[in-house]
Amino acid sequence: MQTGSATDQPQSTAATADDETWRIRRTAADVDRLGETESIFALGNGWIGWRGVLDEGAPCGMPGSYVSGFHERRELSYPEEGYAFPQASDTVISAPNAALIRLWVDDEPLDLRTGTLRSHERVLDLRTGVLRRETEWISPAGRGVRIRSTRLVSLPRRPVAAVRYEVEPLDTAVELRVCSNLLANEKVPERSDDPRAASVPTNPLTAETYGATGLDGVLVHRTERSSQRVAVAVSHLLDAPGTVTTSGDCTPDRVRLTVTGRLHPGERLRLTKFAAYEWAAVDATPADELADLVAAEADAARADGFDALLTDQRAALDAAWQVADVQLDGDQDLQQAVRFGMFHLIQAGRPDSERTISAKGLTGNGYDGHVLWDTESYVLPVLTYLAPAVARSALTWRHAHLPEARERARELRLTGATFPWRTIGGRESSGYWPAGTAALHVNADIADAVLRYLAATDDQRFLAEAGLELLVETARLWHGFGHWSDEGDFHLHGVTGPDEYAALVNDNVFTNLMAKRNLRGAADAAEGHPELAGRLGVDRAEVTGWRAAADAMFIPYDHERGVHQQAAGFTQQPEWDFANTGDDDYPLLLHFPYLELYRKQVVKQADLVLAMQLCPGEFTADEKARNLAYYQARTVRDSSLSAAPQAVLAAEVGHLDLAYDLFAESVLQDLADLGDKTADGLHLASLAGAWLALVQGFGGLRDDRGVLSFDPRLPRRIDRLAFSLRWRGHRLRVTLTPAEAHYELPDAAADAEVELWHHGESLRITGTEPVSRPMPPVPDPGPEPPSPPGRRPTRRSAD
Amino acid sequence: MQTGSATDQPQSTAATADDETWRIRRTAADVDRLGETESIFALGNGWIGWRGVLDEGAPCGMPGSYVSGFHERRELSYPEEGYAFPQASDTVISAPNAALIRLWVDDEPLDLRTGTLRSHERVLDLRTGVLRRETEWISPAGRGVRIRSTRLVSLPRRPVAAVRYEVEPLDTAVELRVCSNLLANEKVPERSDDPRAASVPTNPLTAETYGATGLDGVLVHRTERSSQRVAVAVSHLLDAPGTVTTSGDCTPDRVRLTVTGRLHPGERLRLTKFAAYEWAAVDATPADELADLVAAEADAARADGFDALLTDQRAALDAAWQVADVQLDGDQDLQQAVRFGMFHLIQAGRPDSERTISAKGLTGNGYDGHVLWDTESYVLPVLTYLAPAVARSALTWRHAHLPEARERARELRLTGATFPWRTIGGRESSGYWPAGTAALHVNADIADAVLRYLAATDDQRFLAEAGLELLVETARLWHGFGHWSDEGDFHLHGVTGPDEYAALVNDNVFTNLMAKRNLRGAADAAEGHPELAGRLGVDRAEVTGWRAAADAMFIPYDHERGVHQQAAGFTQQPEWDFANTGDDDYPLLLHFPYLELYRKQVVKQADLVLAMQLCPGEFTADEKARNLAYYQARTVRDSSLSAAPQAVLAAEVGHLDLAYDLFAESVLQDLADLGDKTADGLHLASLAGAWLALVQGFGGLRDDRGVLSFDPRLPRRIDRLAFSLRWRGHRLRVTLTPAEAHYELPDAAADAEVELWHHGESLRITGTEPVSRPMPPVPDPGPEPPSPPGRRPTRRSAD
Repeated sequence: MQTGSATDQPQSTAATADDETWRIRRTAADVDRLGETESIFALGNGWIGWRGVLDEGAPCGMPGSYVSGFHERRELSYPEEGYAFPQASDTVISAPNAALIRLWVDDEPLDLRTGTLRSHERVLDLRTGVLRRETEWISPAGRGVRIRSTRLVSLPRRPVAAVRYEVEPLDTAVELRVCSNLLANEKVPERSDDPRAASVPTNPLTAETYGATGLDGVLVHRTERSSQRVAVAVSHLLDAPGTVTTSGDCTPDRVRLTVTGRLHPGERLRLTKFAAYEWAAVDATPADELADLVAAEADAARADGFDALLTDQRAALDAAWQVADVQLDGDQDLQQAVRFGMFHLIQAGRPDSERTISAKGLTGNGYDGHVLWDTESYVLPVLTYLAPAVARSALTWRHAHLPEARERARELRLTGATFPWRTIGGRESSGYWPAGTAALHVNADIADAVLRYLAATDDQRFLAEAGLELLVETARLWHGFGHWSDEGDFHLHGVTGPDEYAALVNDNVFTNLMAKRNLRGAADAAEGHPELAGRLGVDRAEVTGWRAAADAMFIPYDHERGVHQQAAGFTQQPEWDFANTGDDDYPLLLHFPYLELYRKQVVKQADLVLAMQLCPGEFTADEKARNLAYYQARTVRDSSLSAAPQAVLAAEVGHLDLAYDLFAESVLQDLADLGDKTADGLHLASLAGAWLALVQGFGGLRDDRGVLSFDPRLPRRIDRLAFSLRWRGHRLRVTLTPAEAHYELPDAAADAEVELWHHGESLRITGTEPVSRPMPPVPDPGPEPPSPPGRRPTRRSAD
Repeated sequence: MQTGSATDQPQSTAATADDETWRIRRTAADVDRLGETESIFALGNGWIGWRGVLDEGAPCGMPGSYVSGFHERRELSYPEEGYAFPQASDTVISAPNAALIRLWVDDEPLDLRTGTLRSHERVLDLRTGVLRRETEWISPAGRGVRIRSTRLVSLPRRPVAAVRYEVEPLDTAVELRVCSNLLANEKVPERSDDPRAASVPTNPLTAETYGATGLDGVLVHRTERSSQRVAVAVSHLLDAPGTVTTSGDCTPDRVRLTVTGRLHPGERLRLTKFAAYEWAAVDATPADELADLVAAEADAARADGFDALLTDQRAALDAAWQVADVQLDGDQDLQQAVRFGMFHLIQAGRPDSERTISAKGLTGNGYDGHVLWDTESYVLPVLTYLAPAVARSALTWRHAHLPEARERARELRLTGATFPWRTIGGRESSGYWPAGTAALHVNADIADAVLRYLAATDDQRFLAEAGLELLVETARLWHGFGHWSDEGDFHLHGVTGPDEYAALVNDNVFTNLMAKRNLRGAADAAEGHPELAGRLGVDRAEVTGWRAAADAMFIPYDHERGVHQQAAGFTQQPEWDFANTGDDDYPLLLHFPYLELYRKQVVKQADLVLAMQLCPGEFTADEKARNLAYYQARTVRDSSLSAAPQAVLAAEVGHLDLAYDLFAESVLQDLADLGDKTADGLHLASLAGAWLALVQGFGGLRDDRGVLSFDPRLPRRIDRLAFSLRWRGHRLRVTLTPAEAHYELPDAAADAEVELWHHGESLRITGTEPVSRPMPPVPDPGPEPPSPPGRRPTRRSAD
């Protein structure tokens, strides 16, 4: 078993054959896959997000330069209105784009679609955190140039992004014109009718301040309805032969620096651009103040220089990878895919922003840039272990929007708080209430993320400042929403669970179990902190009511079939006619009405299976096996949120090949563009889900009761699986081989200690005492449960 | 007991004290209630509908001059799209308005809001079918005039409407200018956000042809999206002192005849305008041809003269009233209201148009002018007995739109035909699918109307040409939509029943029973006409399948509470918190989200109670009593469709005071503007429901098994109730007093014969042998079942 510093410090394995697992490479062969490549090559730091558009901005699938939380609001109108239907929706819009650098060669614009592309390669380097590009292009008139660029969005410096752009003649002297742009209101292409796409306003930004001086410039714009102000400054360094000249110009929507000159072979023009992004509420920060701020930030970055940014970037990533890297020996493609996913998770959030992470992060405008439950149920459970401060930021953001959630609850005539199903700014932005407002489980999902974060960190300050109130207000929602039956059961009727091929159901098991966990978690926290709870108006009677509701929570079960019902009556619904469903009929939501989908036993995505993942103690092993088999046969995975939970349960039940294939589907969601939607942005929940599939699935991590336990079991394709997680301030490293599980605290002081369970055995790991234990054989679970016809994940488990 | 010709011929009771029950009168005191009055005074003939706007067109609540079926289409857009969401909606628009006659007195426009209104009265005469107006007005400059007008929309002459307008000076000579307009694209005021209101396009008509010659003129316009062409011609007669002059002018959207002159006291200017309306599909009839047609029709009307129109109108109404009149002694206000309702039902349809009747008839643009299930479930059950040819026309219209219904079924991936929930032109226009597309019961409602029509008429030709195919295609829908449970029951899941405070429920009793009736009715008809059925592809196996599904139809019942469940699980839903619902919270849909309404035991409108009305044989008397009590306590009657079915069942169960008060609510819906929505148009279903409340409720008529039966029982307030209905070509007249029920065939030949049941006794009525039977005492049903707090209908039963 390989342990020790070599595995802890991935950067030291440089120049070995597996280096490609740290890089994502696209060449001339991929230039047509514009939108997909732009999402995959998106750079971000949890504040700024730059899509991986070519330097010259064309051809382009969809431009995007986002700042976390910056958005516009658009009116919603309904063919038939209803009470409390949201009248406006947040929608992500681009801040001015500072990444653009255009090039003319003898007055012909560089455009990969014209002339001759002698070579072209772009590489996303997951360890250094930069996007490199090298292109050799012969213009239609026969003039050749080599372009090299390096782009980064600085992880340690929140407002800063930068590009270093180099161009040199290949064979003959050429007249070059390089235009570095800062461009507002870039045109965004119209999108399809697919409900999962975005609706994009035209020219959403109104100029307030603009100016250029020498090699610097700044734009300040505001939005009309959301009343936000965004400022972007650029500052340039030019390194070029003395013959080149520069000129700057500026319009309300554009700052442009033009560098012109004749270069001979052997000469090189290098332009480095430093950009800084900030936004604030219009009434919080005046335009001039915001302009000064970003100008100073861009200046400071230029003063430090691009190399310093590179060095700091590497250092920040080294620190992040020390926890986040997962080593998966035996499948190089998936090793690369896992690192790709973890890189984007590292990029997605910040510890210092009190901002959250939207479904697409800052990689695209899919789902209008909205935050959904994905964050709390898929992304934060991972970040809680890898970057707990980032998880705390996201939960603090939720807490900051409690006022809107309370107001929404009042509007809906509910109790406590009702968090939005979709939002950027904190207000409900869902335009289809049966799959929005009715999906109340988002409130329990938030509470669950709070409880997981508290269990992993014991962060008492967060509990006092935000966590307890989140738990209390969500518990109040459930207590008021539910009702008691004559039999003394507590029911939650008329809600929508995770499966979006069902809606407005009674007693959705996922919702009920998560609400139960929410009620108990709130009761425990309130009893543990009576004074804090008292300030929130919680008294003993209220806590007693929460516990009573939790204890009596109804969980529908079909005794005849021996399975849980996803919701009451689910197993009595008609079966889906898979025999008459063609391959072209998927995703079903684009080919069948909700009328058909809702009333039948067809499942879009893990729902009961997700309940078994998140509340594993609520099910026996036999129930898990039977439930998994029943729902595997009815789940079509038309959502990218489905494969990972199915992988976790398949692994737990012992169907390790199926688990592996589901894990592969989850981790390849974007790199292989499995859903043909990667162009809209990355599926962060699916990428996070891949970590969960590995760590909860094959690592067998369970943490729902506040203790760490592992029931590891490796699939055939994995020779070694190593991962880390933070627990109560320590980094626990787990290394699994077919023979053995190894637990250690590589960074900890000698007296550090973590208790955990390994296959039912209690272990004590200290800074000086790693522990190894054998991997028990996996009992034969019998034949693999069938998936719907044509819907089994691609088989790579047996490759 | 009063019988014989005096009661058969209501016109002969002229000049008696009860004449006011044949008139609706509005005076100066009512001039502010514009929209409501315009609906109440709407005139129509099933083809043309003129709202009762003042002659001068201002002040005006909402103009409206409709032609049956004439509409535009507008795009629908959704905040979140879904498969098969309708992308366009039909919306009623006005044809050019020929009713307008404006008056200037010494250059001051007649406007009731200015000057002095010395007297003002408008009377809708229900026997002569005209709207009369008499106004004495003193202009701000002190010039007095008397205006008299008489307006009619000709019942016997489909395209024709006319106005006779007279003006005379009161005290001094005045300079008069009378402008008779034919005006297209009249501005319609914007409406509220209430989902029940209409959305009105601006300037929907594009002029094609326009012209004026002498006293005549014509306009031809077309719509953009629905591709319809409408033509309206006007022709005038002028009777005035020789000093007046006339001039005509014409623009694309207006034909105007101006009559000017000085009139002295004792002189009178009388202008009579004859208008004709036609529309056709753009590709069916050229503009010139349509223009010639309406010009000829208007000319012909003028040639015959206004007095001839009056005479023919009276004759047509005499014939209609012979069947339609209901005599209700003991409550003059409700006697008037019943006649008002029957008058509007007479106006709403035609036997010769193959057109249907929309929810508001041709009296307003509420519900966008859409046809809903109201027609088949409320209006046609009445017209089947009063004017069967009109019912046939409406059902033939449904049959004409079978192609769209089949196409919709294919789009929804269902079998057979799926008729639209809302439409004008035949395609689904509902923008909220849970209360539109999912309300599949409309298909069974259509089948039910076919079966009732066939039972009452034995119209074999209709059966062959339309009825059988309607039954077969709707039966196919149910057979394909439903599914079998393990227990051998047939279920219909995921549908919405009549109660719009529930949606997407399983086994809605109303839907299931109506589908059962549909399946059996189709099976019976197919077996009775095997050759016709064979041409529709119906074989023995298919019929067997229908019967099996009908026989096994699941009807949810709560054995503990001893009541049927409106839908599966209904009685286990949480109760509504009536204690914390204020009077201002009604209608609930404007103050609570569907999230709350759908999951609770609160009922907008009769649903299970309507099932008991339409399928009375499916329930025992005890079940009816228990069910009525249970649902009465939970039904808030936020829909005008509710009171009538509740009245019918309350009467059957024996709560006659409650039944009477519910009947009063139904019949006064518009005359008292109970829902504050009369301005959008009349609630035809509520008016029809009032007849059902009387005839099915107090008359005890039941006809669901193809035989006529009566279980009459009169409430305290009614001294005598007399009504007629057509049955197999005969007019059966029923006269009820507290002591006796009298059955006769007043118009029939001696050998005519009708069999019926009276309180379980079989009777045979012939042309020469009326039969009287005593009214048995009504068993004491116990205390009246409570209504929700504050929601009992206004008590007039004990007045």
